[in-house]
Amino acid sequence: METTIKMSTFATVKRMTMICFDSDYMEGAHPRILDRLAESNFEQTTGYGTDAHTENAKRLIRKACGCPDAEVFFLVGGTQTNATVIDGLLRHWQGVLAAPTAHINVHEAGAIEAGGHKVITIEPDPEDCSKLTAEGIAATIKTFSDDPTCEHMVAPGMVYISHPTEYGSLYTLGELEAISAVCRDAGIPLFMDGARLGYALASPANDAGLKDIARLCDIFYIGGTKVGALFGEAVVMPQPGLIPHFTTLIKRHGGLLAKGRLLGIQFEVLFSDDDGKPLYVRTAENAINTAARLKEIFLGHGIELYMDSPTNQQFFLLPNDVIKRLMEAGVSFEQWGPLRESVSPVRFVTSWATPPESVERLNEILDDAVKI
Amino acid sequence: METTIKMSTFATVKRMTMICFDSDYMEGAHPRILDRLAESNFEQTTGYGTDAHTENAKRLIRKACGCPDAEVFFLVGGTQTNATVIDGLLRHWQGVLAAPTAHINVHEAGAIEAGGHKVITIEPDPEDCSKLTAEGIAATIKTFSDDPTCEHMVAPGMVYISHPTEYGSLYTLGELEAISAVCRDAGIPLFMDGARLGYALASPANDAGLKDIARLCDIFYIGGTKVGALFGEAVVMPQPGLIPHFTTLIKRHGGLLAKGRLLGIQFEVLFSDDDGKPLYVRTAENAINTAARLKEIFLGHGIELYMDSPTNQQFFLLPNDVIKRLMEAGVSFEQWGPLRESVSPVRFVTSWATPPESVERLNEILDDAVKI
Amino acid sequence: METTIKMSTFATVKRMTMICFDSDYMEGAHPRILDRLAESNFEQTTGYGTDAHTENAKRLIRKACGCPDAEVFFLVGGTQTNATVIDGLLRHWQGVLAAPTAHINVHEAGAIEAGGHKVITIEPDPEDCSKLTAEGIAATIKTFSDDPTCEHMVAPGMVYISHPTEYGSLYTLGELEAISAVCRDAGIPLFMDGARLGYALASPANDAGLKDIARLCDIFYIGGTKVGALFGEAVVMPQPGLIPHFTTLIKRHGGLLAKGRLLGIQFEVLFSDDDGKPLYVRTAENAINTAARLKEIFLGHGIELYMDSPTNQQFFLLPNDVIKRLMEAGVSFEQWGPLRESVSPVRFVTSWATPPESVERLNEILDDAVKI
Amino acid sequence: METTIKMSTFATVKRMTMICFDSDYMEGAHPRILDRLAESNFEQTTGYGTDAHTENAKRLIRKACGCPDAEVFFLVGGTQTNATVIDGLLRHWQGVLAAPTAHINVHEAGAIEAGGHKVITIEPDPEDCSKLTAEGIAATIKTFSDDPTCEHMVAPGMVYISHPTEYGSLYTLGELEAISAVCRDAGIPLFMDGARLGYALASPANDAGLKDIARLCDIFYIGGTKVGALFGEAVVMPQPGLIPHFTTLIKRHGGLLAKGRLLGIQFEVLFSDDDGKPLYVRTAENAINTAARLKEIFLGHGIELYMDSPTNQQFFLLPNDVIKRLMEAGVSFEQWGPLRESVSPVRFVTSWATPPESVERLNEILDDAVKI
Repeated sequence: METTIKMSTFATVKRMTMICFDSDYMEGAHPRILDRLAESNFEQTTGYGTDAHTENAKRLIRKACGCPDAEVFFLVGGTQTNATVIDGLLRHWQGVLAAPTAHINVHEAGAIEAGGHKVITIEPDPEDCSKLTAEGIAATIKTFSDDPTCEHMVAPGMVYISHPTEYGSLYTLGELEAISAVCRDAGIPLFMDGARLGYALASPANDAGLKDIARLCDIFYIGGTKVGALFGEAVVMPQPGLIPHFTTLIKRHGGLLAKGRLLGIQFEVLFSDDDGKPLYVRTAENAINTAARLKEIFLGHGIELYMDSPTNQQFFLLPNDVIKRLMEAGVSFEQWGPLRESVSPVRFVTSWATPPESVERLNEILDDAVKI
Repeated sequence: METTIKMSTFATVKRMTMICFDSDYMEGAHPRILDRLAESNFEQTTGYGTDAHTENAKRLIRKACGCPDAEVFFLVGGTQTNATVIDGLLRHWQGVLAAPTAHINVHEAGAIEAGGHKVITIEPDPEDCSKLTAEGIAATIKTFSDDPTCEHMVAPGMVYISHPTEYGSLYTLGELEAISAVCRDAGIPLFMDGARLGYALASPANDAGLKDIARLCDIFYIGGTKVGALFGEAVVMPQPGLIPHFTTLIKRHGGLLAKGRLLGIQFEVLFSDDDGKPLYVRTAENAINTAARLKEIFLGHGIELYMDSPTNQQFFLLPNDVIKRLMEAGVSFEQWGPLRESVSPVRFVTSWATPPESVERLNEILDDAVKI
Repeated sequence: METTIKMSTFATVKRMTMICFDSDYMEGAHPRILDRLAESNFEQTTGYGTDAHTENAKRLIRKACGCPDAEVFFLVGGTQTNATVIDGLLRHWQGVLAAPTAHINVHEAGAIEAGGHKVITIEPDPEDCSKLTAEGIAATIKTFSDDPTCEHMVAPGMVYISHPTEYGSLYTLGELEAISAVCRDAGIPLFMDGARLGYALASPANDAGLKDIARLCDIFYIGGTKVGALFGEAVVMPQPGLIPHFTTLIKRHGGLLAKGRLLGIQFEVLFSDDDGKPLYVRTAENAINTAARLKEIFLGHGIELYMDSPTNQQFFLLPNDVIKRLMEAGVSFEQWGPLRESVSPVRFVTSWATPPESVERLNEILDDAVKI
Repeated sequence: METTIKMSTFATVKRMTMICFDSDYMEGAHPRILDRLAESNFEQTTGYGTDAHTENAKRLIRKACGCPDAEVFFLVGGTQTNATVIDGLLRHWQGVLAAPTAHINVHEAGAIEAGGHKVITIEPDPEDCSKLTAEGIAATIKTFSDDPTCEHMVAPGMVYISHPTEYGSLYTLGELEAISAVCRDAGIPLFMDGARLGYALASPANDAGLKDIARLCDIFYIGGTKVGALFGEAVVMPQPGLIPHFTTLIKRHGGLLAKGRLLGIQFEVLFSDDDGKPLYVRTAENAINTAARLKEIFLGHGIELYMDSPTNQQFFLLPNDVIKRLMEAGVSFEQWGPLRESVSPVRFVTSWATPPESVERLNEILDDAVKI
């Protein structure tokens, strides 16, 4: 088994003095996860999530969600999870309601339509284009029912929201309660995309805990990929049986990992807890803290917010020359859409792994970039 | 970042004295892979396979395949890879030719049909139900073209084979050349599912090397999941441009890993080489050696072969009482279909990780089990 | 509104002395249907089957089937009907059981797979490859349930049979009862493709009436296209609610005729009755009588049957030189597969419109063709 | 063949004094079509459009379109045609650009998504929400190409427009030329839904003739259902080979009519011509004339236009009490969306079959309804 490998065969990733705020999936995983993967490496377990680690991870998640009967499933990535869940919930006469900016509508390369389903975009919150409102959902459902031609239209069959949203914003507990009530009234399930759920749970601005979410959503997922895992999303159905044969659907969607225990082990680590708080939330706190400091730094330099986000994605309006100078100084981040005439929106993202010193270094760079 | 985790939160996997031959995905990954993942854990790289590790892994694979222009893509699992490749190759009037026993026909929960494509099963090799023959493929294509109603039928649009096959057997180089010639003559692509390709390459019975495969197939994949990786399959298109926008198709199929470098790093390790042979093949040799010893042991105990396989899957005809005794002695393996009256087919699988001592221990257990 | 049209703009169809037995959709419609279409031409009715003719046709069909609560829907053609019904019945983890020769498996250009569904072919009746047996269905369901890997497989979700079959044969009432019992036991619906149902009902060999079929099948359709209508198939669900929102599914499948009344009017005519027997069955009798005479004529000339059919499709084994001479004499019919060495299978089809004199003329031609 | 049918079995459609302006598919077909169907009823022809009538209809259409090499195909209905054409043009990484109000986006029950394709809605003409603009299409294509995440998005793969539009409006020849140029520049096909094309061609406001359309569109269809046929749409591909195996795709979509000649015969009649103008256009003129008179009448009563349409659909803003009185007087038409507070939009549709006297009768009714 021992082998000697010429190191020259490996890529050398230029670290330079780059300070990266591009996304929350730039690093690997929380070190405890790597440790556990190494420790368990030569265990022999059966495949496809039938192992004891996976069973244990489910138990820990059920406990954290306060729903002892919940069904829990693990998938590898977010698009896969959205496509499989939506395919499992909708019948062929139905579509999924979502905001125009929703990830499923814009950035999943048609994965939902690949399953034969229409994404029905509806008017978002006038204050926040990444959020739906209970009123908007109710109005859409009513308009559909009232339309004499509705038999020729795709019926609202479920509601998709994300928390945090694509713009880092949060639903309040009250908003979630109202949306949930509308959905239950209409008899259609509410699905929460929680790709970044950890960053909601770790944000002081958040008042909807895991147990609230489990009470108000019919199905949701707890994102691992962006919150400390190598990869992995945990789908939770508080009421078992919501989607029969879900394992077969996951397989059909190419999402059933052969070595399913890799998912089990990672969520075992993430939902292990020390002081009554799972590692999943604790490790997310670093992202919230560094993001808050980032906002403070930018505001301190007279930079305006593009949107006000209480989580790990921060959006600013930067003068184009500042954008240029930051890039020249080795700071990487995303322009949010095309450059505008003089001031353009940008996104800075922190994560569980963002070194606080990177943020402070950015502060210094900004002194120069803005001063000039 | 440092955390203390109560170990009691983790599952304890019963190792006992179990000797497991259930499958080739029971362990984690080659230790070098885990090492590299740990070493590179805090590198910051862009997502979705745009990083330097992935680029480097592609370079190494192109070199090993002897096709410097090849396009290489990484996906997470086999079903996902099959579904995405087939979806990329077929137009809507076409289907994929395959053996009735093919994985895509039986064990992928309808993932091919989910893309709207028909699996057209054809007569397999009369000597080996898991193989297609050039004659069989040619006859199917001719029957279709000759049928006056063929405009109402699904046209043969590509050929799917696996190497090794579902039954561990191998195509000879001559057979692959004949099949390739039939496909090129008909103008339809040949796709090889190489989920276990490493075990073919490491088998002394194999005479088709990676460069032959790259020359004869229009597209194929090099399976990592079952051959030393945590997960991952490397799709190779020797002629670039075979499937335009394949990255978008992977995303659409939910197969684009956010932290794409995890795949790049694993294949960097697997295609690093020491003595002119990639680790991928060297680590597979253990499976071939232990499988050969296994066959020797069973034959030595007067057990008959169910099929004669030169790779890591071995099929025997075991008396039902021997099956029972082996299980009681802690040996795990798969029955191959339902129990028959007195003697039933079973499958034993070895892998890159199978300890030789497990095989020897099985030898002793078999002494007792058969003796009685 | 009056217009003069130059007749030279129309195609002149060569009638010659051709005697045609190619299929049962070579002519237009029963003259009463054309009359009623003309009579009702300037009525103004609402679209999509919401008109009084359609309502009335449904009433007549419910009455003929003896199921006053049945839901009845009209579609234009058979492939469309099969695809829509199967799409409506199956969930994504399920497939449809069918004979390998089934129309849905061979001659619908992948319309079932286009909906994402697998056609699971099973062993047909050893005596008749176009029929399923209750035992075969039960065995397939059991094999699936017993398979430890069944979560990775497409589950049997419904059964598809045709009556008459692709080969003109019929299920006995006893066979239908046995198949129905197996399906109900397994909790999966039984669907009968009745594209040629009229020819079953008009055959003296048939002992399963419309009321039996309505009692034993969960859904079936009464084919109009091949039995006297211009086009049209009537789907009957004896228990209402079997497929919710079926109208929307029909629309989604492109099968909702704008001028739905055209279907209503045709089935009004076909299910109007004179002496306790709907025109649908009475007009089919001509096909049965001419087919029986055809069989008598061929047998009288020493020709062997390829299969023994009691309905309007007749299959013979003709010496190749007789085939040639018949064609030269202006008789058209279908070879059933490729020509064999000296004697080849052929299909002759009669219909509601076949002139008895054509059959007698064939008798004379055969005298010469066989005599030589 | 002769039969006596009790007339009481037929539905009696209440004609009363109803004056119907609900839609353009309320009557049957142009009488010449019924005549030809009757005349040809006992011809025997081969199926699926392989007959001489169909061939002849194609010839007439090619001639009318001025493109002798065009491929022409006949389908039964509009949704089916849209779904089949779009499915034939798009690859899986692509979607279809359309106005939010487009029929394919709103009223086809998800038929496009059923084929796995996304309808990408774009900003319509600010003056007419049912039209696209060349600028809007170009901007969408540019935004897509400029987006760094475009590999994760559905690519613009074709453009869908309708002429006349959903609101009865028309593209000018100049607009079509501009749109066509943008599409050709981008290398994506332009598809025109001509469900009501006859009403454009018959409108004096229209300056784009069939030959222009054939020159500017890559594919379009000539709608029969709403313009004098019983049913039927003729798809024209000016450059042959645009969609290979289109017949098989039509079959796969359930749109291949067994008695294909019914479509051929109808279009033979519609494209027969007397004075250099096909019956198709001549019969449409009645709709244009009655619609123009309708507009005159409404304007004469002080009613405002909701939109100004030069074709057979007219949109008005009627006081709610006038709506009520018209309905009470036996006038039927469609409310266009929900009732508003005091004045609501309504749609009146004329057709090839609208009796001019119905319009004059409406004039009288309106005198009373508005006077009060």
